[in-house]
Amino acid sequence: MKKEIAKSSAYDFLVMGAGGTGLAAAMYAARLGLKTLVLGKSNGSELPVGGVITTTDSVENYPGFAKISGFELAKKIEEHAREYPLVTIKEEEAVKVEKKAGIFFVKTSKSKYKTKTILFATGTKWRKLDIPGSKEFENKGVHYCALCDGPLFRNKTIAVVGGSDSAVKDALLLSKYAKKIYILARGRIHPEPINLERAKHDKKIEMMEDVNIKEIRGKESVTSIIIDRTRKGKNEINVEGVFVAIGHIPMSELAKSLGVKTDEKGEIIINHETSETNVRGVLAAGDVTNKEFKQLITGVADGCTAAYYAHEFIMKDN
Amino acid sequence: MKKEIAKSSAYDFLVMGAGGTGLAAAMYAARLGLKTLVLGKSNGSELPVGGVITTTDSVENYPGFAKISGFELAKKIEEHAREYPLVTIKEEEAVKVEKKAGIFFVKTSKSKYKTKTILFATGTKWRKLDIPGSKEFENKGVHYCALCDGPLFRNKTIAVVGGSDSAVKDALLLSKYAKKIYILARGRIHPEPINLERAKHDKKIEMMEDVNIKEIRGKESVTSIIIDRTRKGKNEINVEGVFVAIGHIPMSELAKSLGVKTDEKGEIIINHETSETNVRGVLAAGDVTNKEFKQLITGVADGCTAAYYAHEFIMKDN
Repeated sequence: MKKEIAKSSAYDFLVMGAGGTGLAAAMYAARLGLKTLVLGKSNGSELPVGGVITTTDSVENYPGFAKISGFELAKKIEEHAREYPLVTIKEEEAVKVEKKAGIFFVKTSKSKYKTKTILFATGTKWRKLDIPGSKEFENKGVHYCALCDGPLFRNKTIAVVGGSDSAVKDALLLSKYAKKIYILARGRIHPEPINLERAKHDKKIEMMEDVNIKEIRGKESVTSIIIDRTRKGKNEINVEGVFVAIGHIPMSELAKSLGVKTDEKGEIIINHETSETNVRGVLAAGDVTNKEFKQLITGVADGCTAAYYAHEFIMKDN
Repeated sequence: MKKEIAKSSAYDFLVMGAGGTGLAAAMYAARLGLKTLVLGKSNGSELPVGGVITTTDSVENYPGFAKISGFELAKKIEEHAREYPLVTIKEEEAVKVEKKAGIFFVKTSKSKYKTKTILFATGTKWRKLDIPGSKEFENKGVHYCALCDGPLFRNKTIAVVGGSDSAVKDALLLSKYAKKIYILARGRIHPEPINLERAKHDKKIEMMEDVNIKEIRGKESVTSIIIDRTRKGKNEINVEGVFVAIGHIPMSELAKSLGVKTDEKGEIIINHETSETNVRGVLAAGDVTNKEFKQLITGVADGCTAAYYAHEFIMKDN
């Protein structure tokens, strides 16, 4: 290894995660005069700069944009952050964080950095389906990103697993391509009312509640699934694709290594007014936190709030 | 009075205040299927639909818009809300609110409404300067909205009273018109660092700290002010305009009449995660709340959050 790796670059505010939350935080921090580094591949994210919103086809609930693609909106927030020379965005993965004498040392796959404050805006990763066939057929019929992989299923029959708003939005998006979409939920299907109405009026979509998916079958790729329905028993449905939308796992491991407290779901516990965690100088915002209502607009606002309180911390406590 | 006034129109969600916060909340509520009414002149507001942000020349800190006029941004948020037929916006002033058997009855200057939930997004009004001449010369040299009235002071010498970020932003804006601007602060001048730098580099702006303004003098309009400086004593400065930016008074009177708790500043005390107040079915968001960090982006996000929890309340508790 070369010598320069031993030398840490110094920042005021280091943001783990380059999603909407992290990028908005960086913009705000720069306005407050903080030298800011955004690490875009923190904690094993598979997403590009822009984060999870880039996998959303159409965003209609970010006030100010009546309708915009997630990719385009993420780009606007990224460009907004890049307006400020104090912001640096690096697509590096943080692998270790330590606190020594009030300063944080962050090691990535490529370099080392030090910073006065850290914001965890690491978001979540997709929860995987833990049944036979799930791993075997990943990317061969088992998929997690409807926007990315939907076009592979033109005129095919597919299933979406999950009952959340995200699951139903995935089904609505997949309806542009597939000829038939089952939504399979273990319990109730409970999207936003507007999306429920849309799904009900979509003739390609069939919603099935109280269904467990037991197995994914196939040869080179998926051919069918075995489901188990309350009071109706098991049966096999022919599908060529399974989109899994059963939730997310918060990426809070690095935060935990600093002593940051998380709840039983692994979500970082924050002060909901200030975005501060229990560790001084460490903040968290967006999908990785224990906020119940999580949207792009709330993550973005909380990112800005975190930047403000990081600045307050640096001014008052250092 | 005609008969129809006695009949109340029924809503799920009634928003007091048509600023960015209230309009975003209405959009979100409509997406959740709530029949929503926005009252745009609640509690004596002098502002148009769009709220206080319409009086800001240039907004650079609403993520997604690197630079946009406050008026234009407010228009976009308003149009976003108007996309939803479930949203009605009325420029009426609420004069009375009562709760009977779990339903809220709101009386305006023109009509009566009933609603299951209420959001106070009433914002604030400008704090007036309580010195001789202040009232006498209001709109004759004493002004509160730099964006609205700045153009009246082309090539004139003026003063901005206040030391906050808003005061300095006002001075920077007024620098487009006036030939000389004093910023007079009782204590320190403490804007966002980026705005402090801009003010320092602006040759028209002179910043004076530890200054009390004692009197505004004039004939038909303002001609001078008397100031009192720590250790330097009183003197008179010739100015033709005084822009007052000494803070805001939260418009929480109607909320208080429902039993909503406020803090010592009169700000509505909210649950910072949910935007709920101590009164069931009553929420608050934006500048009227006891949130320390108040920006358009945080008000907008909290408005959406309030809509979500109003929906939760209606679903679970009614």
